[in-house]
Amino acid sequence: MVDTRYAEDLAVGSVLDLGTYRVGVEEIIEFAQQWDPQVFHIDQVAAQAGFFGDVIASGVHSVAIFQRLSVLGAYRHWAVIAGRRVVAEFPAPVRSGLLTASLIIERVELTKPDRGLVVTRGRLVDERDVTVLETTVEALVRRRPGSPHPPLR
Amino acid sequence: MVDTRYAEDLAVGSVLDLGTYRVGVEEIIEFAQQWDPQVFHIDQVAAQAGFFGDVIASGVHSVAIFQRLSVLGAYRHWAVIAGRRVVAEFPAPVRSGLLTASLIIERVELTKPDRGLVVTRGRLVDERDVTVLETTVEALVRRRPGSPHPPLR
Repeated sequence: MVDTRYAEDLAVGSVLDLGTYRVGVEEIIEFAQQWDPQVFHIDQVAAQAGFFGDVIASGVHSVAIFQRLSVLGAYRHWAVIAGRRVVAEFPAPVRSGLLTASLIIERVELTKPDRGLVVTRGRLVDERDVTVLETTVEALVRRRPGSPHPPLR
Repeated sequence: MVDTRYAEDLAVGSVLDLGTYRVGVEEIIEFAQQWDPQVFHIDQVAAQAGFFGDVIASGVHSVAIFQRLSVLGAYRHWAVIAGRRVVAEFPAPVRSGLLTASLIIERVELTKPDRGLVVTRGRLVDERDVTVLETTVEALVRRRPGSPHPPLR
C-alpha cells in the first residue's frame, strides 16, 4: 500500500518506470476493428502488400496501452482529478511484441488552493529499443488537504 | 462507393459531419477497466461521492469514439498512410449519452512527391451541446499516383 501522492508530493524531474505490455497481432486487429477500422490496422493480407509490410497498431491503441501502464505504475497512487490535455506523437509504427513505458514529471504548478496542474512526458519503446510513442499529458491533481492558499502576487 | 481521396483532393476549410455515437455507463466502465482503471472512471459508488458526481469516460475512450467516427465518416475514403501526431483536449467530462462528431480540414501540405501532411481539427459534442473533446490530428496521406514532383525552391 502506497500513500496517496498529492500535487505537492510529485517531484519535478522524477523518472518512473511503468513496466511492460506484450501486444499481439490479434489484439492489434481486434482493437482497431472496434475503434480505428483502417485497412492497415485490420487487414493482414492488404497490409502485407502495403506501406508497412504488416498491420500496425492504431495510435489510439498505443495511447491506451501507455495509459494502462501509467495508471498501474503511477496515477493510481496519485490524487488525480482528471486529465485535461494529451499530446501523442507516433515516430515509428507499433507492431506485435513487448513494449516498455516510462514517464518523467516535467512540471507541477499549484494553480488553485485545492489542486495543481501536473505535466508529464512519457515514452513507449519497443523491443528493438525504437521509440514508438511520445506523450505529453496535463492532468489536474488535488493538493494535500488543508494546504494553505498560494501566496498572492 | 466513394472514390479514394488523395491529399490533393482534400479541400482546406471543408467541414465534415461524422455522425453520432451513443455511449452507455456500462461501456464507459468496461473500457476504463481495461485501459484506464482510475476510480473516477470505473467505480460508480466512489465516483458519485467524488468530484464529478458520477463516473466519467476515460479521455482515451473519448478519443477512441472520435477516431471510430472519423474513420467511418472520412478516413476510410482517404488514402491515409498513418497518423503522426494527435492533440486531444478535454474541456468537459464525457458522461453517458449521445455524442456528435465533426471535423474540419485545416491544412494540406504536399510535403513529398508521394505524400502530403493533412491537419484536421475535430470536435465531439454531447447532447447538451457541450464540447467534450477537441482534437488536432496530423496524418500522412498519399498523393494522387503519378503526381508531378513539387517545384524546386
